[in-house]
Amino acid sequence: MVNQSANPQLKLFSLTSNTAIAEKIAKAAGVPLGKLSSRQFSDGEIMINIEESVRGDDIYIVQSTSFPVNDHLWELLIMVDACKRASANSVNVVIPYFGYSRQDRIASSREPITAKLVANMLVKAGVDRVLVLDLHAVQVQGFFDIPVDNLFTMPLFAKHYIDLGLTGEDVVVVSPKNSGVKRARSLAEYLDAPIAIIDYSEDDSHREQGYIIGDVKGKKAILVDDILNTGKTFAEAAKIVERDGATEIYAVASHGLFAGGAAEVLKMAPIKEIVVTDSVCTTAPKPDNVKYLSASELIAEAIIRIYERQPLSPLFTYSED
Amino acid sequence: MVNQSANPQLKLFSLTSNTAIAEKIAKAAGVPLGKLSSRQFSDGEIMINIEESVRGDDIYIVQSTSFPVNDHLWELLIMVDACKRASANSVNVVIPYFGYSRQDRIASSREPITAKLVANMLVKAGVDRVLVLDLHAVQVQGFFDIPVDNLFTMPLFAKHYIDLGLTGEDVVVVSPKNSGVKRARSLAEYLDAPIAIIDYSEDDSHREQGYIIGDVKGKKAILVDDILNTGKTFAEAAKIVERDGATEIYAVASHGLFAGGAAEVLKMAPIKEIVVTDSVCTTAPKPDNVKYLSASELIAEAIIRIYERQPLSPLFTYSED
Amino acid sequence: MVNQSANPQLKLFSLTSNTAIAEKIAKAAGVPLGKLSSRQFSDGEIMINIEESVRGDDIYIVQSTSFPVNDHLWELLIMVDACKRASANSVNVVIPYFGYSRQDRIASSREPITAKLVANMLVKAGVDRVLVLDLHAVQVQGFFDIPVDNLFTMPLFAKHYIDLGLTGEDVVVVSPKNSGVKRARSLAEYLDAPIAIIDYSEDDSHREQGYIIGDVKGKKAILVDDILNTGKTFAEAAKIVERDGATEIYAVASHGLFAGGAAEVLKMAPIKEIVVTDSVCTTAPKPDNVKYLSASELIAEAIIRIYERQPLSPLFTYSED
Amino acid sequence: MVNQSANPQLKLFSLTSNTAIAEKIAKAAGVPLGKLSSRQFSDGEIMINIEESVRGDDIYIVQSTSFPVNDHLWELLIMVDACKRASANSVNVVIPYFGYSRQDRIASSREPITAKLVANMLVKAGVDRVLVLDLHAVQVQGFFDIPVDNLFTMPLFAKHYIDLGLTGEDVVVVSPKNSGVKRARSLAEYLDAPIAIIDYSEDDSHREQGYIIGDVKGKKAILVDDILNTGKTFAEAAKIVERDGATEIYAVASHGLFAGGAAEVLKMAPIKEIVVTDSVCTTAPKPDNVKYLSASELIAEAIIRIYERQPLSPLFTYSED
Amino acid sequence: MVNQSANPQLKLFSLTSNTAIAEKIAKAAGVPLGKLSSRQFSDGEIMINIEESVRGDDIYIVQSTSFPVNDHLWELLIMVDACKRASANSVNVVIPYFGYSRQDRIASSREPITAKLVANMLVKAGVDRVLVLDLHAVQVQGFFDIPVDNLFTMPLFAKHYIDLGLTGEDVVVVSPKNSGVKRARSLAEYLDAPIAIIDYSEDDSHREQGYIIGDVKGKKAILVDDILNTGKTFAEAAKIVERDGATEIYAVASHGLFAGGAAEVLKMAPIKEIVVTDSVCTTAPKPDNVKYLSASELIAEAIIRIYERQPLSPLFTYSED
Amino acid sequence: MVNQSANPQLKLFSLTSNTAIAEKIAKAAGVPLGKLSSRQFSDGEIMINIEESVRGDDIYIVQSTSFPVNDHLWELLIMVDACKRASANSVNVVIPYFGYSRQDRIASSREPITAKLVANMLVKAGVDRVLVLDLHAVQVQGFFDIPVDNLFTMPLFAKHYIDLGLTGEDVVVVSPKNSGVKRARSLAEYLDAPIAIIDYSEDDSHREQGYIIGDVKGKKAILVDDILNTGKTFAEAAKIVERDGATEIYAVASHGLFAGGAAEVLKMAPIKEIVVTDSVCTTAPKPDNVKYLSASELIAEAIIRIYERQPLSPLFTYSED
Repeated sequence: MVNQSANPQLKLFSLTSNTAIAEKIAKAAGVPLGKLSSRQFSDGEIMINIEESVRGDDIYIVQSTSFPVNDHLWELLIMVDACKRASANSVNVVIPYFGYSRQDRIASSREPITAKLVANMLVKAGVDRVLVLDLHAVQVQGFFDIPVDNLFTMPLFAKHYIDLGLTGEDVVVVSPKNSGVKRARSLAEYLDAPIAIIDYSEDDSHREQGYIIGDVKGKKAILVDDILNTGKTFAEAAKIVERDGATEIYAVASHGLFAGGAAEVLKMAPIKEIVVTDSVCTTAPKPDNVKYLSASELIAEAIIRIYERQPLSPLFTYSED
Repeated sequence: MVNQSANPQLKLFSLTSNTAIAEKIAKAAGVPLGKLSSRQFSDGEIMINIEESVRGDDIYIVQSTSFPVNDHLWELLIMVDACKRASANSVNVVIPYFGYSRQDRIASSREPITAKLVANMLVKAGVDRVLVLDLHAVQVQGFFDIPVDNLFTMPLFAKHYIDLGLTGEDVVVVSPKNSGVKRARSLAEYLDAPIAIIDYSEDDSHREQGYIIGDVKGKKAILVDDILNTGKTFAEAAKIVERDGATEIYAVASHGLFAGGAAEVLKMAPIKEIVVTDSVCTTAPKPDNVKYLSASELIAEAIIRIYERQPLSPLFTYSED
Repeated sequence: MVNQSANPQLKLFSLTSNTAIAEKIAKAAGVPLGKLSSRQFSDGEIMINIEESVRGDDIYIVQSTSFPVNDHLWELLIMVDACKRASANSVNVVIPYFGYSRQDRIASSREPITAKLVANMLVKAGVDRVLVLDLHAVQVQGFFDIPVDNLFTMPLFAKHYIDLGLTGEDVVVVSPKNSGVKRARSLAEYLDAPIAIIDYSEDDSHREQGYIIGDVKGKKAILVDDILNTGKTFAEAAKIVERDGATEIYAVASHGLFAGGAAEVLKMAPIKEIVVTDSVCTTAPKPDNVKYLSASELIAEAIIRIYERQPLSPLFTYSED
Repeated sequence: MVNQSANPQLKLFSLTSNTAIAEKIAKAAGVPLGKLSSRQFSDGEIMINIEESVRGDDIYIVQSTSFPVNDHLWELLIMVDACKRASANSVNVVIPYFGYSRQDRIASSREPITAKLVANMLVKAGVDRVLVLDLHAVQVQGFFDIPVDNLFTMPLFAKHYIDLGLTGEDVVVVSPKNSGVKRARSLAEYLDAPIAIIDYSEDDSHREQGYIIGDVKGKKAILVDDILNTGKTFAEAAKIVERDGATEIYAVASHGLFAGGAAEVLKMAPIKEIVVTDSVCTTAPKPDNVKYLSASELIAEAIIRIYERQPLSPLFTYSED
Repeated sequence: MVNQSANPQLKLFSLTSNTAIAEKIAKAAGVPLGKLSSRQFSDGEIMINIEESVRGDDIYIVQSTSFPVNDHLWELLIMVDACKRASANSVNVVIPYFGYSRQDRIASSREPITAKLVANMLVKAGVDRVLVLDLHAVQVQGFFDIPVDNLFTMPLFAKHYIDLGLTGEDVVVVSPKNSGVKRARSLAEYLDAPIAIIDYSEDDSHREQGYIIGDVKGKKAILVDDILNTGKTFAEAAKIVERDGATEIYAVASHGLFAGGAAEVLKMAPIKEIVVTDSVCTTAPKPDNVKYLSASELIAEAIIRIYERQPLSPLFTYSED
Repeated sequence: MVNQSANPQLKLFSLTSNTAIAEKIAKAAGVPLGKLSSRQFSDGEIMINIEESVRGDDIYIVQSTSFPVNDHLWELLIMVDACKRASANSVNVVIPYFGYSRQDRIASSREPITAKLVANMLVKAGVDRVLVLDLHAVQVQGFFDIPVDNLFTMPLFAKHYIDLGLTGEDVVVVSPKNSGVKRARSLAEYLDAPIAIIDYSEDDSHREQGYIIGDVKGKKAILVDDILNTGKTFAEAAKIVERDGATEIYAVASHGLFAGGAAEVLKMAPIKEIVVTDSVCTTAPKPDNVKYLSASELIAEAIIRIYERQPLSPLFTYSED
């Protein structure tokens, strides 16, 4: 005789790009990581086998699409395909670092929009929902027609600097390029500080000719960006800010890639402390003054709220206490 | 006996939002406007009848989705549906002003992304290609998976200011808000001028507390934005720039809506000349110092190139001669 | 620690076209109307903000797409987009009056099928189910591939006329045009009365030359149509029926638009009483002899049954007790 | 060395339901029928092999979906699949009789809308365009989002009756049921004749209780319907019309199925001549007084116009010369 | 006042192709068969009416798409359409025999891939999940993007032969054609027996020239195939195996069509016993030595596990006890 | 004034996986390779810029999805996206080696079907047509609903062995595993030779226990497979065939991956000559006895035929002259 079916169970799986954050998320959420095997053969092909039933369950897959981004994306797509065919009730992907997010527009003729392509591939593979952390451009949410929850890192960073006493008119939040002003503005709101901008001519070949718009003299400057890639943007901005009289220089980015020799570049820069989240797990060398703030509790809280059908809006605000 | 079919013909139609620019485009392209009837009944419903064959043709429909935006969008969708059912070979929409483009992200919990919704509706109705003019955010191109050609207005504006002699260090290009810096940077490149930014705290209720980042003192300031809506942004920026010592103030925007009493607001502002394109046709009052630069030749050239399968890339650069 | 998620909750929202019926539905269903803000800016764009969580809930949105139909349709589409992105479990739209439903076929070359276009737009925006009241043509149900429940108004009207004693051979149910005979037939079945038809030549320019097929002499005639728009169809039919000897004339329509001066037209017509449902809320003048029968209880019962997974079939029959 | 590709060629194929009309269409269009093999195995499965290249061509497939409708539909779907995979440029289906078209609405709870299902299957299989003859309900055009050209048979029939001198007030065009009044109205327009309607109560079990609305006494009556299925509708209508004093009775339908013993039923009915088109090819017995008017020239002309990108609108009107 | 909705109920329906297995499945699952009416009219059209509510339920439809395959496929598609429009929560189709499955590739130019077409039609009609029994080619699972559970018959057959004592080196499992070696290999594993293959030249016109690869002399041979269609493959293989010295010959196939005079063919063949499952219900004559093993308990167990969100993996293995 | 547009031009592009074969194809087709830049950044992301117009052209992209398969797949997807957005008329992908093709079925519970996933990703990205060489399983063609032309390598190989005099009863074509018998059968047809099969128990851990079904004693054996990956299948089969008395051993595979130390393994095996096509370009070590037969002329001929709308069927047959 048939019984009534139970409600879907939450199951959390980690792929291979960032098992460290996945384990922290699992611990914070009180949910064990599911069992799966993901192998890469000598011809480069990835084979996934999910080693426990997912039938009728709500699956959450943690995967940052960081270096090597193409392998990590295919591993994610293959896992989604396996979950769908194995009758998961819903497939939710948790992408702390969303690779290719900077390719979000056609900058010159006949370029792709790879961030949209990635979105299309995820949806076509069968993803039902996306959970990300500080997307490069908020418009990328609109690249999807499924629900996308974009968690903000700024409250984490604000708390850090408030704890350090970096608030008020002695501080200036600096956007190291002219396209990220909103992000600087957001941190400045938390710290009651003014902002400044490093402007460059559009031609990248003359990057050293950057100059400050705004006032940093005698202030403690916090450089803020979303992605720390090769470190050059921060390093050059730090030099300019130092030249114009900043007394102390901090740098903060949501995602620390440390690609292409970033450690070397950053060690030479006059930056006191670099803060990033643990959205990216990389074996690349890091400078000694890097401090990681974990986003795992924020993500765990979001997963629980989604699963329990509670609003996420409380996560988007920072309360001082 | 059957003959070989001819190639598709280009046919250009104008809907009702901006017949003035459609007529100029038709003239510049050497293509007559097609015959159609578009009526709105007493119950508000729109009825379109295309009065010449479109079977097998490449159709270009000119429609700005400006006020009343919802009527203009439905008129466009209905026309697209009629063209598809009448066996058009391709349906290309020319949208000089793309309404709802500012609703391109979720700014607070449970908001729609209406710009994406509009994109989805157009594509589902049967649009094959979109031709737009200076989209609010370049990422909106990625809201579509069909080809979108986004024409730039900046070369038109640059030519105007160069003709007026407004170039070099005596000039400053000012972004009247902290989110449009790229646009100011782009005009500044053409004019060999520096930039400045008007920054506000995020809370809109204290807008009068804007201040300048950068240096305008003794310079001729050009305020640059993409959409001139109620005129308040320009008016307030002009006051701040004047207070900080600018000698002459100009304002330029791609799209002039002049909504909600903009004429009154702008008449009071210390602005010498306001430049917009003819992308929007409005019966709203305009201040006397508005100058319209027509984008019709640029659009006509783009339509011809698309139809003749020539690259559009030459249209994206400005040459001085 | 994670808890099991609860079942989806029913949430009922009203948009702006017919808040009166929405409130009655809410009351009849015992469900409060959800909180949302829907504003229209000076440039005509609509901005919706849902002011309570809809995550995981079954959402029912009440919106008649009556005048101004294009605004009301976009308001509905935008609300659907917002609900989907905010992770609603299902989005159900309740459309007591379905605008554009008469544009359900290509009447002459190169016309659109706007009713299908509306159906496509709703589905693409993310609607999961549609609940309507007496669709103009039943085939419009087939324009959708999602479930469409089409509630009938005829039992409401039948009860009204039975209460008035209008039954049997002394009564004749008259279709005021030759395309709505099924509707007259349906009411006649309830009233045990014969039917008659007003026929016109196809050319609308000679409408006054209508004539009756069937027998109305000495009978009480009930004119029945689905949409009362400008009132001309009823007014002309009433004159013809009066001329042919009907003793009393009644008129009944599911949807009362009263567009384009209908009140004036109807006041001059020899009609004793006009009955419509409250599917349309309009500020247009109405004649004094209009009587509104509320469809709100019927709709409320349908919503509850859908939500509780009970069959709707009991709602489609009229029982006399 | 590569040459420029030629334009697509028109290729016409006949499946097995109505090779007679396909051959006439081919002759009228001056296009030979393409070679293909379609076999049905002992287990009922159909296997199609196209025996000439269709790569890059515009394919027109002639298939009436008459009895056995399910076999004929699958044969059509399989042929479409084969054409698509063999790189046809476009696949156009010519369906003189569109089976399942009467299942176009949900008549009682939990019924399918099979006509929509058929439309969805055709489109999903890869059909680009549909050419049909006198659809049962014009709304079925809206079941498709691809172009559907619905050719009218009424001008063919009108010419036939005008040639017979059946015009004017001595003639009455009778709809044998209350749902096809538009069709009677249309023929009446051509013949300058009045119309009448046979009305029945909704309950099919009492069909013999039909009665006439309108006047047939002393007139020559033409019964008009779209589908002649079992012949009962015509036979019963003829009896009623005869009883009420019609002097001669004719019957005309676009599609002659003659199913379920129709010949016997019709032989007993007081009908002088029954006219149908050759849209359906059936081995069922037909009464002797059936006259076939071929729709092949009309269809051939439509195919040529579609292929040559000429408007079809001239085909929709009847000119007397 | 609204109550919380209950969970979806499992409802099981049988269409007309194989009511025998449906009744056994119903009994084994402890679920009654739902009420529906499926009629075929004299013009060949099928009309389905579901006679109990399916709103919100999980529907399982049992239908083998055996002869007449096209009727059975349309009956299935129409039922799926009806369920979807009647608001079923999910539509699951149980297809013990999947017709057209051998048309799974393009064997020569311009052939269709009808098995993929069938898959596309099912999905487009609204199927959410497919449950099949021993698909002809396992790749057909990939023709779907919805979950497909493919149950294996080999454990049933293995048990039968083990019970008969047919195991070990005295037995040889023979693939009667060179394309089904995997199936022979699988049965051989269960029986600890070697395999052999009947090879033919590719040209079917010389089929009698088949020969054995491998050794059957003095062994009991079990011929294994998936589909027993006309019986010729088994009959010819049996002759070859007998000629080469097999002592006893058995034959086993998952699906017994017995088409095109198979009984006659098989009676003449030196086969001791033919085993098939009850996946196909046919009125075709069968030879006397046919033994049916019912797959109904396996299918019933699978349905219950799917409904209860339990893994199906335990069903894929055979345990001896 | 507008001119008529020209027909689409054929443009051929090579991505980075196999530029050698692309250049040969270009030369054989008489079409130059188009200009593009494809870079991989230090964070692993690929950026493509097409450096000539593709507007309105028919684009053919050559890319084997061999090691590193995930990079090569993303490079292909990104290129397709760029072509689509740049208004290519059609995007055709030429994939000489189709990676992930062996993951074409669910071999054990909860596995993905990655070959189908790849097909879905290509189609969603915008591919219009696929040209491949000897797919692992012919059913993979059915994973696509767009045209897939699967070119056969067997005629190339047959010609090679016929030239070497390897025909007739002295030769035996051996399938090195029990699942590729069709491929052996096909080569045997060309060579008028018998076949044999190496059979293994299903359990891979006992692979050395393979044995021959069929007769190789005193014959020249040709081992045939589609993919030469690690070389183990060939090496083990060669040992078995040698042990059973073959006099000379050849091996042939369509695709030579030489992964995971294949050169070492193959050097130890008693194989005289290994033949593969140039579908895969790899830096992996190869044994000295590898002979490459180029498939470039076959592919070039296919591209020209597709572009010129000529049938490909002549390419599927081998003629001896």
